[in-house]
Amino acid sequence: MTVDFEQVLCPISSHDDVITLAHGSGGRKSAQLLNDVILKHLRSEYLAPLQDSASIPVRGTSLAFTTDSYVIDPLFFPGGDIGQLAVIGTVNDLSMSGARPLYISLGLIIEEGFPIDTLSRIVKSIADTANRCDVQVVTGDTKVVNAGKADGIFINTAGVGSIDHPRPPATDRIAVGDAIICSGDIGRHGCSVMAQREEYDFATSIKSDLAPLHLIVEELLSANIDIHCLRDLTRGGLAGCAIELASSSRTRFELQQEHIPVSTEVRSLSSILGLDELYIANEGCMLTVLPQTDVNQALAIMHRHPQTKLACVIGEVTEGPGDCVLVTPFNTKRKLEQLTGEMLPRIC
Amino acid sequence: MTVDFEQVLCPISSHDDVITLAHGSGGRKSAQLLNDVILKHLRSEYLAPLQDSASIPVRGTSLAFTTDSYVIDPLFFPGGDIGQLAVIGTVNDLSMSGARPLYISLGLIIEEGFPIDTLSRIVKSIADTANRCDVQVVTGDTKVVNAGKADGIFINTAGVGSIDHPRPPATDRIAVGDAIICSGDIGRHGCSVMAQREEYDFATSIKSDLAPLHLIVEELLSANIDIHCLRDLTRGGLAGCAIELASSSRTRFELQQEHIPVSTEVRSLSSILGLDELYIANEGCMLTVLPQTDVNQALAIMHRHPQTKLACVIGEVTEGPGDCVLVTPFNTKRKLEQLTGEMLPRIC
Repeated sequence: MTVDFEQVLCPISSHDDVITLAHGSGGRKSAQLLNDVILKHLRSEYLAPLQDSASIPVRGTSLAFTTDSYVIDPLFFPGGDIGQLAVIGTVNDLSMSGARPLYISLGLIIEEGFPIDTLSRIVKSIADTANRCDVQVVTGDTKVVNAGKADGIFINTAGVGSIDHPRPPATDRIAVGDAIICSGDIGRHGCSVMAQREEYDFATSIKSDLAPLHLIVEELLSANIDIHCLRDLTRGGLAGCAIELASSSRTRFELQQEHIPVSTEVRSLSSILGLDELYIANEGCMLTVLPQTDVNQALAIMHRHPQTKLACVIGEVTEGPGDCVLVTPFNTKRKLEQLTGEMLPRIC
Repeated sequence: MTVDFEQVLCPISSHDDVITLAHGSGGRKSAQLLNDVILKHLRSEYLAPLQDSASIPVRGTSLAFTTDSYVIDPLFFPGGDIGQLAVIGTVNDLSMSGARPLYISLGLIIEEGFPIDTLSRIVKSIADTANRCDVQVVTGDTKVVNAGKADGIFINTAGVGSIDHPRPPATDRIAVGDAIICSGDIGRHGCSVMAQREEYDFATSIKSDLAPLHLIVEELLSANIDIHCLRDLTRGGLAGCAIELASSSRTRFELQQEHIPVSTEVRSLSSILGLDELYIANEGCMLTVLPQTDVNQALAIMHRHPQTKLACVIGEVTEGPGDCVLVTPFNTKRKLEQLTGEMLPRIC
């Protein structure tokens, strides 16, 4: 069911003097680009921890600040659209640092010739989603580029949130012995987008898991559950996220394969496509790393929310060199590696 | 020297069911798109005033929050590059609401095949400029789209600043009798980019006026100069900006044509191209609207900074229906209208 990504996915034309799709994958090439080109010049106190959001001090108060661009193709997919994605993605990024999402900026880059009624649908979707997430779009910008110089529409949102909790989740709080909870079944977002693309006209009922997680996070934090780290499983999927967290915290993330929730539909489709669901992007799914003593209370809260009703412990943080291993049902261990190519381009 | 934009610039193919370049011009079509499509759905307390930045309350403190996408072509131009532009544009937008710029987010959308050393030059330029402007890039995102689906690189930055002043500049503080100061000679940014484009291979010495204005603004505010409104003269140029401010404040902006600083080079080039320098984008030039009594002190401060050494009073706010008129040297008046087409696409 799994494939050798090293061999299959690394494009033959890939070399390091031009940008390839792999540089946007959230995998190994993305990390290389980040380190060798971006952080080389832009290293800063707040950028360094590579959280979903930066925690920044402003006049004695602590804020979360984050940004994401959305280049998803197609713009409308089962379970959502680019507008919903642009709001929810940023709301979730703020939530993952324990912040209460407050304000969003909206940057639109539109290709000349883009239908205005499609734009209107997308903007309405942004407004409805912002409303649903209790965030306000407070500033925006629209640029138009010549026909053929962009692909329909790209959206950037940045978000500002308030970090009210005294000990917010952060990568450096991950501790050996912590439990790892996965909040839901994985792979639905990527599969739904993939199935929608013209070249793969599958009849499938898979819908994206796209959903805001901020209310669940707020409830967990209000209940004084000592969450050490939160991370949503977007680009790079569960594996990409677990590898990154293990690497940052210099521990080992040991995941029990048979505990990881995956629907039959996602398993079948990813199997047909030769994809590994562990690496497929999600948009409403998160890892929660927390002390074992807090697990039952956290799961009780999660199970009350439809979005996280399948939440379960999928593994544990152990001592290690900063890697992630998958324990198979036969109790063998497979080391998970960051993708070197791009499995599903333009999934978010 | 001026042209009838209504007739010349409105593209023949322009109709209202698809996006045209004019929708990104900062002119009439942009305003239509903003009102009919974007604000229709997204009207909010903070978005409504249409300042360069939104002023948002967070836990008892007042912040400025702004965003801009940069799609300029070419990426490198005399006097700057897209990286400098992406930092300075956002720094200036924060300054215009009287905020001290603090943090910047960086969203990169890169086309597959883009040279990594060009990316590296741009990121270095971003880092150097952020350093020079005393802002930190604290969060970022990189997306890669397939070859042919974007044009090299698009950059979005959002910015957060702290509004420390008790009475920051705002459109609703513009008052009849106020003086209007223009901080420098206009049209250099647009002309430099235009001259650089392959199709117009002019030999010209015009350099973009691209420069951060935040230190000058901070000095003006610290000196307790009662600035009513600030606006940088980007898309839409001096005319677009003055028309917008007059319209928002329901006054008349009366500009004295002979007082508006324009270099001979810009005047010649724009004349050759049939462009009106009043509408050409600037990236280091602002209007300051303030009481007549504060003019001398403001000019004295501005004249100490190289970027604003040509600052001068170019007009006055009078009673009016929300329009802008240009008083010619012959004392005739010309009403300035928002552009209906796009004079210079992808200038920022």
